[in-house]
Amino acid sequence: MLAGGGGISCVLQDGEVFEKAGVNVSVVFGQLSEDAARQMRSRGKSLKAKDGKLPFCAMGVSSVIHPKNPHVPTMHFNYRYFEIEEADGKNSNPVKCYEMYDSTRRKRDHMAQLKGTKQWWFGGGTDLTPTYLNEEDAVHFHKTLKEACDKHDLKLYPKYKKWCDDYFFIKHRGERRGIGGIFFDDVDSPSKEEVFQFVKSCAKAVVPCYIPIVKRHCHDSFTPEEKLWQQLRRGRYVEFNLVYDRGTKFGLLTPGSRIESILMSLPLTARWEYMHTPPESSKEAEILEVLRNPKDWVR
Amino acid sequence: MLAGGGGISCVLQDGEVFEKAGVNVSVVFGQLSEDAARQMRSRGKSLKAKDGKLPFCAMGVSSVIHPKNPHVPTMHFNYRYFEIEEADGKNSNPVKCYEMYDSTRRKRDHMAQLKGTKQWWFGGGTDLTPTYLNEEDAVHFHKTLKEACDKHDLKLYPKYKKWCDDYFFIKHRGERRGIGGIFFDDVDSPSKEEVFQFVKSCAKAVVPCYIPIVKRHCHDSFTPEEKLWQQLRRGRYVEFNLVYDRGTKFGLLTPGSRIESILMSLPLTARWEYMHTPPESSKEAEILEVLRNPKDWVR
Repeated sequence: MLAGGGGISCVLQDGEVFEKAGVNVSVVFGQLSEDAARQMRSRGKSLKAKDGKLPFCAMGVSSVIHPKNPHVPTMHFNYRYFEIEEADGKNSNPVKCYEMYDSTRRKRDHMAQLKGTKQWWFGGGTDLTPTYLNEEDAVHFHKTLKEACDKHDLKLYPKYKKWCDDYFFIKHRGERRGIGGIFFDDVDSPSKEEVFQFVKSCAKAVVPCYIPIVKRHCHDSFTPEEKLWQQLRRGRYVEFNLVYDRGTKFGLLTPGSRIESILMSLPLTARWEYMHTPPESSKEAEILEVLRNPKDWVR
Repeated sequence: MLAGGGGISCVLQDGEVFEKAGVNVSVVFGQLSEDAARQMRSRGKSLKAKDGKLPFCAMGVSSVIHPKNPHVPTMHFNYRYFEIEEADGKNSNPVKCYEMYDSTRRKRDHMAQLKGTKQWWFGGGTDLTPTYLNEEDAVHFHKTLKEACDKHDLKLYPKYKKWCDDYFFIKHRGERRGIGGIFFDDVDSPSKEEVFQFVKSCAKAVVPCYIPIVKRHCHDSFTPEEKLWQQLRRGRYVEFNLVYDRGTKFGLLTPGSRIESILMSLPLTARWEYMHTPPESSKEAEILEVLRNPKDWVR
């Protein structure tokens, strides 16, 4: 079996503004594990295996930033491209994506022998996880993402905003991981070039949607109680990532994955208290309400 | 659909000796979710649904104790009884376990109408998760469990010790959660009474296998570096429980579960550092070695 991958991870830990912040660029290829194929089929993909094998390659960039100050929200983005080679013989369209990073002649020759129909799609998104609600920040974040989407198609932001609220749902808690943003997966139309342009617009919106919020709040004062609430919210972040997140699950199921890169998204520290319930009308209850009932931040 | 349950959870938090310690007694009944049924079938159970339904009831006692001092290990035990009513009509053996806690006449009458063949089994175990290795403690813990097993059948301890090492494997890390103990599931022979007696022996061994270790080390001095290593190990504990643990997964998949009781097992605090690797021949490397290659503690 031919499998492998490469990439670069870069992590800042215990910084002055960021408690833990990581960026990860990676390309992996190999055969889909049975579990991973089942996960994909469950979202409606027909994946016809070829001698029991489903060669794939995937590449993406992702980042999670957990700030120190509880008044600065956590931000996450991920944009990825996926290819699977299916068994139907006729179409001689070899999977070639490995060429982007792999310069060893031997591997390229081997990969070039695999022929079949190629399924491809883009996925990704950008989302915000505040410890406390700041309406102005929420509006700025969503508005910036909406502008990036609107350049391509006015239907995209509403659709991907809702998808984000649905995707980052921590079912066992009945709450979302954060106040959302945009999320999409399996996007393969209208054309590869057009989807790629759209994904590039989204990626370019990351800095303008987040950095102004960091600058605005990174010197805010905070209490030990606020730090504690942040730690409890970090616990929920861990729950979502380990129990539900598609990328994390795919990584854990794929042999040869670099586990440190996959679990880079986990916060430096987290906390779980039994039966913690914030008092009514508190700032803590205010954010919980929004996590339970997502709002429209941009009209 | 008839579903419900009851139980008592009791949690000690931020104590002098224990950072977080919980005990949970519960009885749940209802219809197995499709995911839960799939999980059980994947371990070899034939579960013939009846009009698409699989009435079940489960009851158990479980406890996780996370001490403050990094020289006192975390201990977990769980003993449970499970019943599923299958569809084959002939055998009129109604599921009755709810009677143990449910005194409402209406529910009992309803349950009593469900007839079918009953599958039952016991499962459970007791295991230790030290931050640092102490051979004397490890031997004491395993020896006490072995004695409890040996009273019933000399084959049980070796079998369930290995099962424990296999079960608490964090696949994506290539290491076990701790130094093991005993673990078993789906035990339905030689007879319900005999298995119940065995499970009782195991449960009675919990206090003598663990409390002497707590007493021996709860006043040990420790450094901030040792506390940090404990927090990193707690992160691994969270990873195992959320990604692999059968009981946690069953709880998260079962509607009506009490989420605070299920996630009671998570530590008060945990930590994830990128690429943390202890130096060779350190005390931290010593425990990692044992987590990667389990040892026999009792001959």
